[in-house]
Amino acid sequence: MKALVTGAAGFIGSNLVDHLLAEGHNVVGVDNFSTGQAHFLDRAMLHTRFSMQRGDILDKAWLLSRMRDIELVFHFAANADVRFGADHPTKDFEQNAQGTANVLEAMRICGVPSIVFASTGSVYGEASIIPAPEDHPFPIQTSLYAASKLSAEGQIQAYAETFGIRAHIFRFVSILGERYTHGHVLDFYRQLTEHPESLRVLGNGKQRKSYLYVHDCVRAIFVALERAKDKVNIFNLGTDEYCEVNDSIGWICAELGVSPHIQYSGGDRGWIGDNPLIFLDCSRIRALGWKPELSIRQAVVRTVHYLRENIHRIERNDHLSCVPS
Amino acid sequence: MKALVTGAAGFIGSNLVDHLLAEGHNVVGVDNFSTGQAHFLDRAMLHTRFSMQRGDILDKAWLLSRMRDIELVFHFAANADVRFGADHPTKDFEQNAQGTANVLEAMRICGVPSIVFASTGSVYGEASIIPAPEDHPFPIQTSLYAASKLSAEGQIQAYAETFGIRAHIFRFVSILGERYTHGHVLDFYRQLTEHPESLRVLGNGKQRKSYLYVHDCVRAIFVALERAKDKVNIFNLGTDEYCEVNDSIGWICAELGVSPHIQYSGGDRGWIGDNPLIFLDCSRIRALGWKPELSIRQAVVRTVHYLRENIHRIERNDHLSCVPS
Repeated sequence: MKALVTGAAGFIGSNLVDHLLAEGHNVVGVDNFSTGQAHFLDRAMLHTRFSMQRGDILDKAWLLSRMRDIELVFHFAANADVRFGADHPTKDFEQNAQGTANVLEAMRICGVPSIVFASTGSVYGEASIIPAPEDHPFPIQTSLYAASKLSAEGQIQAYAETFGIRAHIFRFVSILGERYTHGHVLDFYRQLTEHPESLRVLGNGKQRKSYLYVHDCVRAIFVALERAKDKVNIFNLGTDEYCEVNDSIGWICAELGVSPHIQYSGGDRGWIGDNPLIFLDCSRIRALGWKPELSIRQAVVRTVHYLRENIHRIERNDHLSCVPS
Repeated sequence: MKALVTGAAGFIGSNLVDHLLAEGHNVVGVDNFSTGQAHFLDRAMLHTRFSMQRGDILDKAWLLSRMRDIELVFHFAANADVRFGADHPTKDFEQNAQGTANVLEAMRICGVPSIVFASTGSVYGEASIIPAPEDHPFPIQTSLYAASKLSAEGQIQAYAETFGIRAHIFRFVSILGERYTHGHVLDFYRQLTEHPESLRVLGNGKQRKSYLYVHDCVRAIFVALERAKDKVNIFNLGTDEYCEVNDSIGWICAELGVSPHIQYSGGDRGWIGDNPLIFLDCSRIRALGWKPELSIRQAVVRTVHYLRENIHRIERNDHLSCVPS
């Protein structure tokens, strides 16, 4: 199979590229390197079955030129900066909604028959059913990020119905593991290695979140591709558990051997649109025979190990972030 | 109140403008006149409280210049051509999703606090609960049109959460009445006045659809604005009934005094993405005290009367359409 991966130099995208290459597929990677990191592809670059080109999915002509002979698109390019949506109100729509529109049009024009899309559990907004199943009541969006992913989902579904492409849409919880470059584990890691005596946390620390290990995530995608053959296949991806921010803080501190004084900003939300409880019902993907190998705790610890080895290579974000995501 | 109406020269938009002016408000109308008709505003133009400017909501700078001192935006500009989405795959996204993104950004920059949005019952896709309530299970989109409206809904909700605007979102069934310019009543009217002996119908005639009279629609919007004060207020708008296409054909034929031979193309859908059963649960808006004054049959007949008087002013669509919508 010849697959195209958008966001190939990103956290999940690059892990996906490695998996595809290991399975013997031909892979075309594209990334604009706005947040992607070239060294994530160091291993992939050794494969003759891999080609990579820098470019932006907002450039329609360029995108079209990459789509020839592709059998499956993994659309993972996105602005994944959930928290700071309010600082750049048009970015989520442009990169995630318009970006997906461009990918779908290029696929249609070139006759690419199948797409895998990285959506988010945030599309459930503040879920009224916990854990949230895929057929949760029609939700109200609470972040620009989730709204842009919902837009992408809807477009993909309409292209599937109108033009006969097949779609696998995955609503992820937050992903952890190797090549993780933003989120609460990194934020807390940086704070605790720079000043181990104190930790600032937005919210009250009781926000409950779910996480999934990146290799479990990638495995689930391929299980679904293999076993789910509807026109539109939608799966939540997460573990059957959640943790409090305070749990995660405890695991990270234990791993680092520190006992900081914790300063909470207070309130049950870290920021506007922060969801105080993310927990997805993953029984649909589990019914296909997949289950995660790592617990949330194990995934957090694995991520701390990764950061310890690689923190010097991870670019510092402009935003000082001290909140879970 | 000073209100801005996008799509002011359209079917529903122009009826809304008349209502706003009759209620004593100041109204700024905008329209690109791609489908809007200047003569729909003949009455509005007589008001000193009305101003109208031609322009396109895709022109961000222009749109921004119209937004000063506006207190409420009625966003009714849209590509409303549901059936022919496949003929112009990017049009729905550009005009409806990107257009709404532009409206929201202009509102945010100018501090406009409130929006009313014309969405569609088509966002329920092929509903699993009939009649479909507003909290119907998370649907799968089946048309580019509905996907673009869903995108707009999500963006509006995210802006409400992120920037504190208030939103009233209405999911309409098909609207009938004065200034109706496209859809099955027009298609059948044209066919039957040009060759009364035969009528071509896409599908099997058993598709079940709901309709609402435009004045009932406009009244419902103002009832909701008056009585629903949540941050995001979502209402289905329709009658508590549906009809078969064959019912509507019978009413139109009776009104025109014709007895055509009916040729069905067959199948339970008129076109790809045609929904064979649209029926919305409108108990939420009814609980606010609104109810429609006209039945579907009365609305169809009223529309035929309007067409009889005005058919010479309604531009012929390039597409020969013989399907219900």
